[in-house]
Amino acid sequence: MPLGYTGKILRIDLSDGNIKEENIDQVFMRKYFGGKGFIGYYLLKEVHPDVDPLSPDNKLIFATGVMTGLPVSGMCRYAVGAKSPLTGGYGQAEAGGWWGPELKMAGYDGLIIEGKAEKPVYIYIKDGDVQIKDASHLWGRTTDQAQKLIREENGDDRIRIAQIGPAGENLVSYACIVNELKHANGRTGMGAVMGSKNLKAIAVRGTQKLQFKDKEKILDIARWFSGYFKKNPLTYGLYNWGTSGGLMNFNKSGILPTRNFREGSFEGAEKIWGKTMAETILKKREGCYACAIRCKRVVEVDREDLKVDPELGGPEYETIASFGSLCGIDDLGLISKANELCNKYTLDTISTGMVIAFAMECYENGIITEQDTGGLKLSFGNKDVVLKLIEMIAKRQGIGDILALGSKRAAEKIGKGAEQYVLTVKNQELPMHEPRGKYGVGLAYALSDTGADHMQAAHDTLFTEEGEVLDSIKPLGILEPMDPFDITEKKVRDFMYLQFLWSFYNMAGICDFAPVPRGSMPLEKVVDLMRAATGWNVSLWEMLKAGERGLTMSRLYNIRCGLGAGEDRLPSRLHQALEGGTLKGQKIPEEEFMQAIKTYYAMMGWDKETGIPTKEKLAELGIDF
Amino acid sequence: MPLGYTGKILRIDLSDGNIKEENIDQVFMRKYFGGKGFIGYYLLKEVHPDVDPLSPDNKLIFATGVMTGLPVSGMCRYAVGAKSPLTGGYGQAEAGGWWGPELKMAGYDGLIIEGKAEKPVYIYIKDGDVQIKDASHLWGRTTDQAQKLIREENGDDRIRIAQIGPAGENLVSYACIVNELKHANGRTGMGAVMGSKNLKAIAVRGTQKLQFKDKEKILDIARWFSGYFKKNPLTYGLYNWGTSGGLMNFNKSGILPTRNFREGSFEGAEKIWGKTMAETILKKREGCYACAIRCKRVVEVDREDLKVDPELGGPEYETIASFGSLCGIDDLGLISKANELCNKYTLDTISTGMVIAFAMECYENGIITEQDTGGLKLSFGNKDVVLKLIEMIAKRQGIGDILALGSKRAAEKIGKGAEQYVLTVKNQELPMHEPRGKYGVGLAYALSDTGADHMQAAHDTLFTEEGEVLDSIKPLGILEPMDPFDITEKKVRDFMYLQFLWSFYNMAGICDFAPVPRGSMPLEKVVDLMRAATGWNVSLWEMLKAGERGLTMSRLYNIRCGLGAGEDRLPSRLHQALEGGTLKGQKIPEEEFMQAIKTYYAMMGWDKETGIPTKEKLAELGIDF
Repeated sequence: MPLGYTGKILRIDLSDGNIKEENIDQVFMRKYFGGKGFIGYYLLKEVHPDVDPLSPDNKLIFATGVMTGLPVSGMCRYAVGAKSPLTGGYGQAEAGGWWGPELKMAGYDGLIIEGKAEKPVYIYIKDGDVQIKDASHLWGRTTDQAQKLIREENGDDRIRIAQIGPAGENLVSYACIVNELKHANGRTGMGAVMGSKNLKAIAVRGTQKLQFKDKEKILDIARWFSGYFKKNPLTYGLYNWGTSGGLMNFNKSGILPTRNFREGSFEGAEKIWGKTMAETILKKREGCYACAIRCKRVVEVDREDLKVDPELGGPEYETIASFGSLCGIDDLGLISKANELCNKYTLDTISTGMVIAFAMECYENGIITEQDTGGLKLSFGNKDVVLKLIEMIAKRQGIGDILALGSKRAAEKIGKGAEQYVLTVKNQELPMHEPRGKYGVGLAYALSDTGADHMQAAHDTLFTEEGEVLDSIKPLGILEPMDPFDITEKKVRDFMYLQFLWSFYNMAGICDFAPVPRGSMPLEKVVDLMRAATGWNVSLWEMLKAGERGLTMSRLYNIRCGLGAGEDRLPSRLHQALEGGTLKGQKIPEEEFMQAIKTYYAMMGWDKETGIPTKEKLAELGIDF
Repeated sequence: MPLGYTGKILRIDLSDGNIKEENIDQVFMRKYFGGKGFIGYYLLKEVHPDVDPLSPDNKLIFATGVMTGLPVSGMCRYAVGAKSPLTGGYGQAEAGGWWGPELKMAGYDGLIIEGKAEKPVYIYIKDGDVQIKDASHLWGRTTDQAQKLIREENGDDRIRIAQIGPAGENLVSYACIVNELKHANGRTGMGAVMGSKNLKAIAVRGTQKLQFKDKEKILDIARWFSGYFKKNPLTYGLYNWGTSGGLMNFNKSGILPTRNFREGSFEGAEKIWGKTMAETILKKREGCYACAIRCKRVVEVDREDLKVDPELGGPEYETIASFGSLCGIDDLGLISKANELCNKYTLDTISTGMVIAFAMECYENGIITEQDTGGLKLSFGNKDVVLKLIEMIAKRQGIGDILALGSKRAAEKIGKGAEQYVLTVKNQELPMHEPRGKYGVGLAYALSDTGADHMQAAHDTLFTEEGEVLDSIKPLGILEPMDPFDITEKKVRDFMYLQFLWSFYNMAGICDFAPVPRGSMPLEKVVDLMRAATGWNVSLWEMLKAGERGLTMSRLYNIRCGLGAGEDRLPSRLHQALEGGTLKGQKIPEEEFMQAIKTYYAMMGWDKETGIPTKEKLAELGIDF
């Protein structure tokens, strides 16, 4: 049967060891697609909003998408979801790598992990054979150690492992889940949920061949794309310089988050961008499953003061900016080491860098002192403290125990006005895109279901290219150019349509670096691919409506958890003037911005004041369970 | 340049004889497509809602669509719009034939006729050469006579003529415009608007070759479809038995409007359906421009009591039912003659049949007497009166002068409770589809921008075929089967999506008999065709959003004209039990139905109570002029 014709969800209760398979039918698959679609559905149905995210009553959902496993660039993603310990609402994080396709080849479209194991365990799935295994000997180990042991004890080097390190075990609010040591389900603290269940790892080995409706068509597109992507500056840039290839442009435009978002340009930018990496520490370019783009970096550093193990990959743009410009650090080796540590401990690099930058600004303003830090001088640019803080957070030592709560809750504990230096939405720290230079990113942060998140919609720099609309987004009905500093209804509409697209990519398991507008595969090819994979006569309309469905479900879940209109706002700093860089003085006008939020509600078919989806919108999208 | 890359609108002011060309750009074309898109745009911008529809201040707009003129089945339509003298709001009627493609080949995408000529004129357009010519000698002539004269005096037999006959000249509220003597822009009285401008005809001759981006692709699809359509029972049925091939099924299901919608089955059905026609009076099957389906009938009758001239075509389903079962007439020859007369006089056959049936029911109930009718006995089934009444209406003689107002206004004049026998929405008479057997048709009638109209959305019998969803409508996101007697939110959603599709077909100039769900060309081919024609990377999303845009503009215009929520209702008879036929006793539950109307408003992004589009919806659709 081709993808999508039948589906199987594996449900594992760690409390009683019960394991069962649940079939899902074609109508369900075509309506929800996977990813956010599955997660939203199961959270709404099964996880009561009052549940403590770190209690056994929370459920941890691993969801591939209909396209996950297609032998085509970008078709490798899966999402992990649960009620988030960081935001207190809808939690979700995506990752690439090989783990998602591997799960599918083992026979499953998704996993639902329930309850809590009495003692540390890991799950081993091999082609439909599922075991819950003891992990006492793995607990406390870093990811590289644990992976080695799991592979050894099961006698198979090709087992793919999604796991947590000490940060997850220690319930750090922004602990992530890492697969293959370098691909992270980064945001919203999914690693902490996994830790709370005493679940160390999910090790998967799948050898079943995936069936597609029209394999030849798929291979045709795969072959075409593997040549074509290099002709497009966006995708070729990703191959050539990695995700940090755009860092110098951001710096020039004044939108490179610097020193905790105080400034937008960084004097050390040239030392940390992708080209410099390629010319210095880059060991090789790597890709995810079946991907020709190979945006992933593998770096090796062998300096006197620090060594970086290439087995744990290399830093992406988000990591480079959050430990680099954001903390005032211009040492790419150090940043790479921070990345390595985060991958070993399973810490989300964005939140970790942001929490450190927050602590630095508190320190510079006398709110945190050397007494609090055990003597560490947390000045911006101080290379001696970053790696130490990462360890302290992962191990919850000293001030690390407070910082492990995330910057918002840490500020509440610290008091003394620390909150003014917090840059979060719904308690989640901002990613490395400066909304004061592209207001659409502000909408994305304020309105994202997971709190500030860059994986939830396009950046509006994509809208304009020498004043022209990119041809690639015209099929969305966006025909007119867009000013990054526009925050009118037109901007809201374009943002919303692109958000539908991103949500669809998430649900289908598609990496947004392959297709347009961030990548180069046209939308019509994406439609063709899904048709060829499934045999469905699917359309872009259906896909975008599904994307809207996913967003509406996660919104509903947030509303139930108390994350409503009051939480759809940016940290106050973004409504204040940038203190430095090319865009010095630039701020997002607050009144117009809050008006745009209401416009968004109304456009989404949500109540304009409360932001609650109307029952007619729910009926339209078939959210009636 | 391929279609859509540039466009030209011809603006003709009949008051001062001013003629000018206006260029429209690609963004405009891709946003509005044509048809309802152009008409809505120009009515909103240029025709004040207070304008008397029959005054020089009204404008008559002829709008082709982006696809009009493609050498593929179904790509031949154009729409005529104006403020309607029948509904008092948004007026519009579509037609097929050759006239639309001819206008395009003459160099124009649309015409805007303004003002009023001092004396009767006609417009002659030949390849960009435009003349306003005297029509004094044509005034009062029937269409067949006028066509002959125009062709003769311009020395060209291939001139295509859209024109009015005496009914249009005499401002009958439901006068239509007829092209090539047999294709009618039937509804909402566009012929009366044309008459009010002293405009007899628009004669067009175009010899320019239309340019397409990818001609080979278009020809491929054209060739494929000309074989494929016969494999699909819907399109093959249209070829084989014409539009009245389904009449017997309607009769069997109890949804054949009979005796002014009192009953739903007709004892004489077998005598008037398509198969009987094919076996008796059918002379040949004809199609519109480039169409392989050939659903049009040409009939010839040569009886002692009546003769029907094949030059004026033959009756379609709507005509057969409205003069047949609706009036209790089972004589196909007589019905064909009624059709011929309506084409000669330019009367809308639906409204004409409905007005006569209304008069018959009044007569049977003593509200109209022989004194009023000049001795005519208007009983249902009386074959002697139908043709006489048609002449009297067209010439506004005797009771015909009152009936020429349309049944609603006629009933107001007649008084004595005549209104109870009126079956209109927004003053326009119901087409020949019985909503009590398919509630979605009720929604279509109540919510159509033109008043009761069958060209505004699908019938929900299309939703179910042995309990299954047609595969063809799944790309709309309709995945679950639909009960014709359902009137819940789910029905509203499915209706709304199909309405977007219909609106798009109208705007693009596509006949709904070629593509799914009424025809057999899959939606993906429609997308491919538009891409091949224009070179745009257009998507189904974009098309349906454009369809929504068209519907929202016409709604806005109606709201401005005072046609709001209060007018979105069905005549009371439909909420009462059918008096006869298979569905005897069936009625549409009024409360649930009115609830569904409100649900529709909310789903459309309109105010749930007033039915006025919200400003956010207008902004989303870019209706900001």
